[in-house]
Amino acid sequence: MPDTSSPALGRAMASEVAEQPAVLDRILDRGTAAIAQVADAIRSDAPRFVLLTARGTSDNAALYAKYLVEILLGLPAGLTSPSTTTLYGARPDLRGCLVVAVSQSGGSPDLIESTRVARDCGALTLAVTNAPDSPLNDVCELDLDVLAGQEKATPATKTYTAQLLTLYLLIDRLRGGDGRLARDLPAAAAALLARQPEVREIAHRYRFADRLVITGRGYAYATAREAALKIMETSYVAAHAFSGADLLHGPLAMVDSEIPVVAVVPDGAGGRALYGVIDRLIERAADVCVVGTADAVVRGTVGFTLAAGIAEEVSPILDILPLQLLAYEIAIGRGLDPDVPRALKKVTETR
Amino acid sequence: MPDTSSPALGRAMASEVAEQPAVLDRILDRGTAAIAQVADAIRSDAPRFVLLTARGTSDNAALYAKYLVEILLGLPAGLTSPSTTTLYGARPDLRGCLVVAVSQSGGSPDLIESTRVARDCGALTLAVTNAPDSPLNDVCELDLDVLAGQEKATPATKTYTAQLLTLYLLIDRLRGGDGRLARDLPAAAAALLARQPEVREIAHRYRFADRLVITGRGYAYATAREAALKIMETSYVAAHAFSGADLLHGPLAMVDSEIPVVAVVPDGAGGRALYGVIDRLIERAADVCVVGTADAVVRGTVGFTLAAGIAEEVSPILDILPLQLLAYEIAIGRGLDPDVPRALKKVTETR
Repeated sequence: MPDTSSPALGRAMASEVAEQPAVLDRILDRGTAAIAQVADAIRSDAPRFVLLTARGTSDNAALYAKYLVEILLGLPAGLTSPSTTTLYGARPDLRGCLVVAVSQSGGSPDLIESTRVARDCGALTLAVTNAPDSPLNDVCELDLDVLAGQEKATPATKTYTAQLLTLYLLIDRLRGGDGRLARDLPAAAAALLARQPEVREIAHRYRFADRLVITGRGYAYATAREAALKIMETSYVAAHAFSGADLLHGPLAMVDSEIPVVAVVPDGAGGRALYGVIDRLIERAADVCVVGTADAVVRGTVGFTLAAGIAEEVSPILDILPLQLLAYEIAIGRGLDPDVPRALKKVTETR
Repeated sequence: MPDTSSPALGRAMASEVAEQPAVLDRILDRGTAAIAQVADAIRSDAPRFVLLTARGTSDNAALYAKYLVEILLGLPAGLTSPSTTTLYGARPDLRGCLVVAVSQSGGSPDLIESTRVARDCGALTLAVTNAPDSPLNDVCELDLDVLAGQEKATPATKTYTAQLLTLYLLIDRLRGGDGRLARDLPAAAAALLARQPEVREIAHRYRFADRLVITGRGYAYATAREAALKIMETSYVAAHAFSGADLLHGPLAMVDSEIPVVAVVPDGAGGRALYGVIDRLIERAADVCVVGTADAVVRGTVGFTLAAGIAEEVSPILDILPLQLLAYEIAIGRGLDPDVPRALKKVTETR
């Protein structure tokens, strides 16, 4: 939903954020056949463990998938460090391993190289990209298109939620599910995005903030990390994500009344586990904005109430939406153009 | 080395930082027999993959070990999210998996519970703690004492380097090594710590900083993360660690001349891979303090030159030392007591 008061700034990001219900719908409609085929191929290979490899926003999608693999599939999973392969020449024995490379562009040289090596080392490789003809797709046996359409703004938004839903449907299929928990996501996403004025109101609070802490636990940790990355990219605020547990192991010391905190508290075990963390933060006089259930919002200083009745395992696909809007609104409020963050290119080439 | 001008502040931390050469020496002298026994037990189990589980400072030691496992042993490795077990009840199939739980106290309930479940699920489990009688040791088949002695200051220093060296010697032994690259570490550590006045000089620069970015790549990424945690704990600065590659995927946008950057650039492939990142930062008018080789230091704004001739795989055991001193000196310079950071307890119990 474009901010009509500033038509020149953030137009691409606003339009891509607004496209997300349609993209989710497209994946549910046209993506499931390919997802089922890939699931069959993975099942016939019966992997014993899963490695996920990605950078930036895609790495946050990979983190969500790691939780899904461990919880829904009962398989151990890890996020790779591409540098062990590209810098140090590691050649691990990856027989019995599924390697999932997640990337919008499929073009980053270190991802391509480390995935190629993984395949040489015996892994079954799957590319999840928004660019079906990318070099990353070429080096993998299997690939999935996240069907998000061209993304012009540098901060990834619709490609992120498209990655999340595609990975969810794949993993749900692998456990024998039929994707039913995802069916209402497009409508729920549209309802959340229609509440942009509420987010704009909250964004005023951060007009002059130069630091921000974002916390979540379990599935919501991926959302916290992605929200922090969006805010860093668009508004140049030092936004720092911590899992609720890690926050208590040290970083809590730096939180005072001058550092705003955003807590992501969806319905479910991960959300409830954050209640104690919110209480500790409020004790420390922190200013806590809760994006979460009605029950959680009353514990914070300000809040944005998420819809009830969403299963926690699909909740990250929705919970990021008000936080994308928050990143956008903070940038617009500062007169910055979130479409073209300073210093960044859309496709980052790291080696 | 206590700061004699402020005898009341940070006395425990200063003395524990200064103890590190002796602790490293103790491990090399008295720890290797137990390490060899544990290595034999692991070898006879022939694990196919390794999971590391930890929180806070110990999680940074686990990250170092993950690089070692992938590069030196050629095994896939991952860092676990204890919440998948403790919050969501995941029961992954862990036959053929080595689970290494790293903790100073061995007392955090979520670590104990997730490690107990891992063992039930078929993993071989190893506790690496500074408390040989801890509950975490009890739930594991194997355990190693890092021999650091009691640590009184809340910010972990000597237990961290003791964890690093213990994990290094274990993994080196598993690949058939004799630990020779570690032999000179105690003397090299003493030489670095003797240069505290140089670090104090650099610390003046950050007297009024409220944000800090720390970057490293490969092995040095663990050092960057641990340095950020120390600075957050002791000085309440929002210190944010990024791998050099991840920094370019978004967070670079928030770096300007007002956010100081510390780059960890040891000799080797990881250090050299950071040269391009430093150049990008300097282009953005960033103030970059390089803790690294002489060749790297000249690329930055200010610097601390690390000793030459240290193998990169053991370099993290030394590179953190000037950064521990930096955290200490920033805190002392602000009149804070790094021994007892506000809001923290020495043993953090997360569930």
